[in-house]
Amino acid sequence: MRKIALRLAYDGTDFVGSQWQTNGRSVQGELESAWTQLTQEQQRVVLAGRTDAGVHAQGQVAHVVTATRHAPATIRRALNALLPHDAAVLDAWEVSDAFHARYSARWRKYRYLVDASGQVPLPLLRSCVLHVGYELDTEAVQRALDRLIGEHDFAAFASVQGYDGPTVRCCYQAGCEIVTWFDRPLLAIDMVANGFLRHMVRTIVGTMLLVGQHRLSSDTMGQILESRDRRRAGPTAPAHGLMLLAVGYPAEVVSPEMQEVLGKDNHENLFTESL
Amino acid sequence: MRKIALRLAYDGTDFVGSQWQTNGRSVQGELESAWTQLTQEQQRVVLAGRTDAGVHAQGQVAHVVTATRHAPATIRRALNALLPHDAAVLDAWEVSDAFHARYSARWRKYRYLVDASGQVPLPLLRSCVLHVGYELDTEAVQRALDRLIGEHDFAAFASVQGYDGPTVRCCYQAGCEIVTWFDRPLLAIDMVANGFLRHMVRTIVGTMLLVGQHRLSSDTMGQILESRDRRRAGPTAPAHGLMLLAVGYPAEVVSPEMQEVLGKDNHENLFTESL
Repeated sequence: MRKIALRLAYDGTDFVGSQWQTNGRSVQGELESAWTQLTQEQQRVVLAGRTDAGVHAQGQVAHVVTATRHAPATIRRALNALLPHDAAVLDAWEVSDAFHARYSARWRKYRYLVDASGQVPLPLLRSCVLHVGYELDTEAVQRALDRLIGEHDFAAFASVQGYDGPTVRCCYQAGCEIVTWFDRPLLAIDMVANGFLRHMVRTIVGTMLLVGQHRLSSDTMGQILESRDRRRAGPTAPAHGLMLLAVGYPAEVVSPEMQEVLGKDNHENLFTESL
Repeated sequence: MRKIALRLAYDGTDFVGSQWQTNGRSVQGELESAWTQLTQEQQRVVLAGRTDAGVHAQGQVAHVVTATRHAPATIRRALNALLPHDAAVLDAWEVSDAFHARYSARWRKYRYLVDASGQVPLPLLRSCVLHVGYELDTEAVQRALDRLIGEHDFAAFASVQGYDGPTVRCCYQAGCEIVTWFDRPLLAIDMVANGFLRHMVRTIVGTMLLVGQHRLSSDTMGQILESRDRRRAGPTAPAHGLMLLAVGYPAEVVSPEMQEVLGKDNHENLFTESL
């Protein structure tokens, strides 16, 4: 049997989420269905990161174990011909048996887009940008994000109901910058961590929206983290502003070519330093 | 009676075009319907530029004559509450009777987005970026665009069937640059002219795709223009990559505040120079 890794992009709008669910279309379900059409095999597709309904991806990673002899480029082309128009395989590689899309991942990078321009929301961006009716102090947001970098217990910033696993994660990067869509300025909030708790990015963004309005001080981030109390953080921001941008793996399980595509930011070094 | 000018944005995907047609939803039809709900008046909405089905706008201009006493900001908010989710009024101003959205316009600016990255098309951009399966020589494209600047007969670059009006237009700017959507590079082809013939931007873009592949030399642009023969130019590029970005008006018919929003590029000077 061979193992194939896939890099995926999808428009999350019409998916119930990345993982298979009984109540609608999932990215996993569409991939498994396309895989079966291509190979006649019934294989499980394993995704690196779980994304909620409405969350997009431009760098999700998956793997599948297979007996098929098709070359990775053939698999990519064939899956794209079989997949619906809101999901695509950007790249495909053969990987060693040691590679596991979820368990081998060392970091994930997310970006959240907010339109706080004070202008009317743009129809074309309605499914991928959160529009808010106020302006944001981006310097205050950056100061608050700075406080999240490093190893922390993120229980205060996550939906931990029904979850009793570890809530400590290591955040390698947290920053914001202004990007533009034609002439419209958008605030991009970026986070890189070794892992994210459920709703963690969206709750951090919801908290940053309070900080950016000066309804919460940047200096309180430390207290909120230490409290481990979800009620101290802001509301969970809507899903549709969020995009999973990249997942990174150590050199032991991926080829240099694959690592070049997946991890140009080289968070691997940051990871090593943080240990 | 008062005259109200509107700046519009829309996602052209599900419209049959900007102008009222018998066979489906138009931007004009939706605006007129919202206007009637707001004011109980049956007024004609006049648009600055005609856009085809699938073409987007983030700066289309319209005007409407009305007896309503609502302030422009109230009109903007009320129309946005009444309009469908794929159309929006970005700004509204009261203008003098001398203003006419179409006839007073001095220049229009369009941008066309092409994904020639050689990568798989991104699902999230499927309705607003043309994906092509080859790379483009952007320097050759820029040289060809340079040749279009100035006053020319653009008959070769337009659908002139059933049209016997003038085909001379003045092109003030024609350029291309690389923009990025997350980590994906896109080629943006921009054009500013005093007016555009039907399908003119799309035919110029279709021709640039040939130039960018070296299937047509940049040096032939002059010959194609001079030929006035539509068969000499390239195919008409698909509608969905095109966006109407801005429409500019002379200071005589708009306030300084309105001109600031509509025309930061100040093509007005270019226009004066070209006369």
